[in-house]
Amino acid sequence: MSPEFNLIDQFFTKPCRHTDLSIGDDAALLQVQAEHQLVVSSDMLVSGTHFFPDADPELLGWKTLAVNLSDIAAMGATPKWATLSLALPNIDESWLADFAKGFFRCANTFNIDLIGGDTTKGPLAFNVTIMGEVPKQQALNRNGAKPNEDIWVSGQLGNAAFGLQYLQNKIAITEPYKSTVLAALHQPQPRCTLGLALRGLASSCIDLSDGLLADLGHILKASNLGATLQLADIPVLTSVATPITDNKIQATVLAGGEDYELCFTSSQANRETIQKLSQALNLPITCIGQTTTDKKLQILHNQQTVSLMTKGYDHFT
Amino acid sequence: MSPEFNLIDQFFTKPCRHTDLSIGDDAALLQVQAEHQLVVSSDMLVSGTHFFPDADPELLGWKTLAVNLSDIAAMGATPKWATLSLALPNIDESWLADFAKGFFRCANTFNIDLIGGDTTKGPLAFNVTIMGEVPKQQALNRNGAKPNEDIWVSGQLGNAAFGLQYLQNKIAITEPYKSTVLAALHQPQPRCTLGLALRGLASSCIDLSDGLLADLGHILKASNLGATLQLADIPVLTSVATPITDNKIQATVLAGGEDYELCFTSSQANRETIQKLSQALNLPITCIGQTTTDKKLQILHNQQTVSLMTKGYDHFT
Repeated sequence: MSPEFNLIDQFFTKPCRHTDLSIGDDAALLQVQAEHQLVVSSDMLVSGTHFFPDADPELLGWKTLAVNLSDIAAMGATPKWATLSLALPNIDESWLADFAKGFFRCANTFNIDLIGGDTTKGPLAFNVTIMGEVPKQQALNRNGAKPNEDIWVSGQLGNAAFGLQYLQNKIAITEPYKSTVLAALHQPQPRCTLGLALRGLASSCIDLSDGLLADLGHILKASNLGATLQLADIPVLTSVATPITDNKIQATVLAGGEDYELCFTSSQANRETIQKLSQALNLPITCIGQTTTDKKLQILHNQQTVSLMTKGYDHFT
Repeated sequence: MSPEFNLIDQFFTKPCRHTDLSIGDDAALLQVQAEHQLVVSSDMLVSGTHFFPDADPELLGWKTLAVNLSDIAAMGATPKWATLSLALPNIDESWLADFAKGFFRCANTFNIDLIGGDTTKGPLAFNVTIMGEVPKQQALNRNGAKPNEDIWVSGQLGNAAFGLQYLQNKIAITEPYKSTVLAALHQPQPRCTLGLALRGLASSCIDLSDGLLADLGHILKASNLGATLQLADIPVLTSVATPITDNKIQATVLAGGEDYELCFTSSQANRETIQKLSQALNLPITCIGQTTTDKKLQILHNQQTVSLMTKGYDHFT
């Protein structure tokens, strides 16, 4: 048997939970439940752009799947299936075993079947296509926000970006905060349970991968609205993100990217329900402002407008 | 608007034919017909491994999608949706416009919606995940071949591999054969119509991407069978693949890879039907041998066993 097929057999073929035909044919076969839509998203991670070439392979395996799950969570859908393509400069069995360990730890946590993919020789890169399902008419889109709704985010913003700055020796962070920001960077927790709970509750939803400003900007543009946010209400790791008035800290929190939290809008009538949901999930969910008919994204601090130095993250800038 | 989103808007956002929500949200939404299975396959193409760095972008755009369609054809399924991830070393708008032109020429020819994907900075590589649908129980698998069935292939084998050898200055080929082998290499024609027609007719099917020996080997292994093939019956471009007894020519035809033709098994009772199908599709479909209970893959020429110097293509060998 040739090395390519050996690799797939050895590291990436596991029993499936909800797939009719998995790895080993020209394509996989699966069934979407009646009265459901299939939800599909695809993300590519490239060495040097998305992660350091010497990144821990087990953490990388987790993250490769987790960032894709975050997109499905943002649609209010149940993730079920994934394909994984790997370009590898050479065959390093120990590295691959660790990568697979992290990948399947995430897959098992979120009940995902790996149904196919590809391995090929090339500069280190991964592509995951994630698929899930959602009852018809219940998906959370970006374009459903209405004026005067609350804007909410889960978790804390900026932690992954602070973790990256720490690894780049740009800032100093001590324990226990160091562990918190590195975990946010290396092992993002896709908010799948929250996404499902937001069906019927959120009017729009997006996952925060490129930073709050860019991603909330997508909701506002798609919904033809603006927003006013309260800087002091944005949830951060206070010991690291202080003072929030500092330009660099603001940029990290508002545009650092890789939060993989959910940002959503909801009628003000739902405030109590969302606060109870936050308690039930043991996950901070914080109201950071409101949508406006004025199409600007304005951030206030002590009733003054904050002038923003930054926008969201873009790989090509 | 940032360059990444600009690129997607400018080159890769086109009207969709059969998708509820396409590019522009966290994920796409689509519906699989009732009583159908979703068929999913994913392939990665990397510069330097699968194509020359200076390859014509329009041809590359076609091929990137076409090689994925071939997998769906081999399942007897109707391809409908694709995601495309691109890693690009820099933004070359003219290159991207040409790539998109080729990609959508193929997408329009085969009625495919591009529903999502990713663009990122990195060494040139593409990943397509292709999705289609097939009525339940009608997909063509690799494991359904039975003893004493005919083995058929569409088209001619080896042409793409001869084309590659020509570009590598390993062989000389003159017109009109040069155009034929380069077209086979650059613009493979996925056998989607044939795949659909083989439902209920083929007992197993695979697409020939890694060469006849490797890919037929997958059918035989999955079906627990062997085969005897007649070397002289294997369809080739005679003017180039002569003499077929030459070791290098044999290796090119049997294991050169990238044929993207279909190989399938069928009861001998279906011979006439398949010959009529070949005429109706204006596509050569040739019987090259039979399956056997003896689990060897044997090739005969003038009633002598041909000793094979080669196996299928593997990126890591």
